[in-house]
Amino acid sequence: MALKFELLKTSGKARRGRIHLPHGVVETPTFMPVGTNANVKLMMPRDLEEIGAQIILSNAFHLYLKPGMEIMKIHGGIHNFINWNKPVLTDSGGFQVFSLRKGRKINEDGVWIKSPLDGSKHFITPELSMEIQNTIGSDIVMAFDYCAEPEISYDEAVYALELTTKWAERSLIRIRELSDQAIFGIVQGAFYYDLRERSAKEITSLDFDGFAIGGLSVGEEYDITLKMTEFTAPLLPENKPRYFMGAGSPKLIVDLVYNGVDIFDSVLPTRVARHGQALTWKGKKNIRAAKFKFDKAPIDENCTCYTCRNFSRSYIRHLFDRGEVLGQMLLTIHNLHFMMDLSKKIRESIENDTFENLRGEVLKYYD
Amino acid sequence: MALKFELLKTSGKARRGRIHLPHGVVETPTFMPVGTNANVKLMMPRDLEEIGAQIILSNAFHLYLKPGMEIMKIHGGIHNFINWNKPVLTDSGGFQVFSLRKGRKINEDGVWIKSPLDGSKHFITPELSMEIQNTIGSDIVMAFDYCAEPEISYDEAVYALELTTKWAERSLIRIRELSDQAIFGIVQGAFYYDLRERSAKEITSLDFDGFAIGGLSVGEEYDITLKMTEFTAPLLPENKPRYFMGAGSPKLIVDLVYNGVDIFDSVLPTRVARHGQALTWKGKKNIRAAKFKFDKAPIDENCTCYTCRNFSRSYIRHLFDRGEVLGQMLLTIHNLHFMMDLSKKIRESIENDTFENLRGEVLKYYD
Repeated sequence: MALKFELLKTSGKARRGRIHLPHGVVETPTFMPVGTNANVKLMMPRDLEEIGAQIILSNAFHLYLKPGMEIMKIHGGIHNFINWNKPVLTDSGGFQVFSLRKGRKINEDGVWIKSPLDGSKHFITPELSMEIQNTIGSDIVMAFDYCAEPEISYDEAVYALELTTKWAERSLIRIRELSDQAIFGIVQGAFYYDLRERSAKEITSLDFDGFAIGGLSVGEEYDITLKMTEFTAPLLPENKPRYFMGAGSPKLIVDLVYNGVDIFDSVLPTRVARHGQALTWKGKKNIRAAKFKFDKAPIDENCTCYTCRNFSRSYIRHLFDRGEVLGQMLLTIHNLHFMMDLSKKIRESIENDTFENLRGEVLKYYD
Repeated sequence: MALKFELLKTSGKARRGRIHLPHGVVETPTFMPVGTNANVKLMMPRDLEEIGAQIILSNAFHLYLKPGMEIMKIHGGIHNFINWNKPVLTDSGGFQVFSLRKGRKINEDGVWIKSPLDGSKHFITPELSMEIQNTIGSDIVMAFDYCAEPEISYDEAVYALELTTKWAERSLIRIRELSDQAIFGIVQGAFYYDLRERSAKEITSLDFDGFAIGGLSVGEEYDITLKMTEFTAPLLPENKPRYFMGAGSPKLIVDLVYNGVDIFDSVLPTRVARHGQALTWKGKKNIRAAKFKFDKAPIDENCTCYTCRNFSRSYIRHLFDRGEVLGQMLLTIHNLHFMMDLSKKIRESIENDTFENLRGEVLKYYD
């Protein structure tokens, strides 16, 4: 198999694990930086390596539109194309069924989605998604699912769940025809406990290499996200990795790890960086604030990232003030370094059975 | 003195030199990357070091507006502020007398210039320019001059020339009161041979550490730029560095070096990079062109820059196609590396008396 998972230690429900993949080892828990368009915005691969990224996420549907599969093929997959030789996970396009739902049409076979680039229509099936992810050559393929919107009714949620299970079966069949790439199933079920339970049962009965909790963090209240995770995570097998799709806030991350989640991703740390927001161990800082004008200290005095080793708040504020993209570049490095540092400290604290303290520390500064 | 110049070798009129400055040695001829707003756009200092930048240029007037001198003072100058420990040359604001001439008012004392940021009016005198450049702590200060527009009449050119000489004297007096920073005088005289001759005579009679040819590359025909340089350069003393202000095209650079110029700067290589244009030893390439869609070769197969060592034309084209700034970052690295490589090859060719061949090679691909 293309994936081997070791559960090294638990501390409460929190898990310290290790995922072996074709392009390397991923120590968990860990955050995965997002590179939707075949790049993590403003980050050169060497910057990603320096901050300690172990695995990055890309997106089948976006890569299918651009650069397109013909280009992906001549490069022999995403690793060569983007010059990143560590693991890559690709989302299946299931999230775009949710995020691009304007003009979407769903039937049992698949989904018509409108390209956000040129309005062209594309019919994505589980089989096509697998073919795309196979061409991309990702280390972890995601099953094609139906990620429903938060305002969904019970009946609609049942429909989405049932489609997700059928598509999971078809995804599994197709990817196994194509390759031995690792593939994760995705549990849906919206915000209904019984549907979450049913989806978890159906999806985990299939021979996936890991499982994702999908359909959360899509606009619902924080408490609901958490309750659904608390309920769903224990329904997943212990001996396989657990992935929460779309979690980037430090608060959510420690709450997920507390509930036994291993990996998570989000554009949040890079997106807020481009707007001047720095993530630190003492909470968020808006680097554009007037109080930083004369501040010679680095963003975070204990941080060891390139940005904090070399530049002051005052300088980075100046760059934002003048609209110089270098400011966004430096904050992106810092924020992703913070996420990897947070991941590392979480791993260490599980090893030392001090995760509760670390979680308390994070929750003090992030709400 | 804060500057020592060695003329190591000549080959025809071309000069191989070495400038010793407080923050390091500059081998000449060399191109200087431009960092107007206290950063070379999209370049981290470590990227600048990697491409081999020896000295960068910044701008007194822009830094005076933002971040302002109070911030520059608390950082102890630009080197600490931007985290660059190699030489910095600052332009005096004289070029802004030209480029911001809308709303400008000139009198013998100085110039009223309107801020391009907020329309506020600032009265810049030679003394103020020196005080700013002293606070910035540049390795090379430029005298405050009157850079006139290309359509200037003879009488206006005489006035600009005379003011430039008076301001040069005042610049020299004021900077010597403040520090022993190296300072260059600037020759003006528009496009009149007799005025160029008169300006060169007046400016070189003053005790400057080097001399610049100013007022060219401001919109005039290429032949005029060249003829004026050909005429002016021999009027400058042999034992001091010669700086042509505002030259970034490979063609102009080899033509300037041919005429005995040592250093030059321009935003061109970084600006065109942001628009997708790559500079190579076989001429310019527009990386957005359809023909590069499936092209797995690097931008320049013989180039050793980070971009060419790691990425294909096809990938960089994709990044531009998707509006991903990483594409601009990678091309900026490549173009500045090319400029430093061109500078290095020029130096080697002067040492080996093969500069004429190199110039011919460059002129074959750049016109």
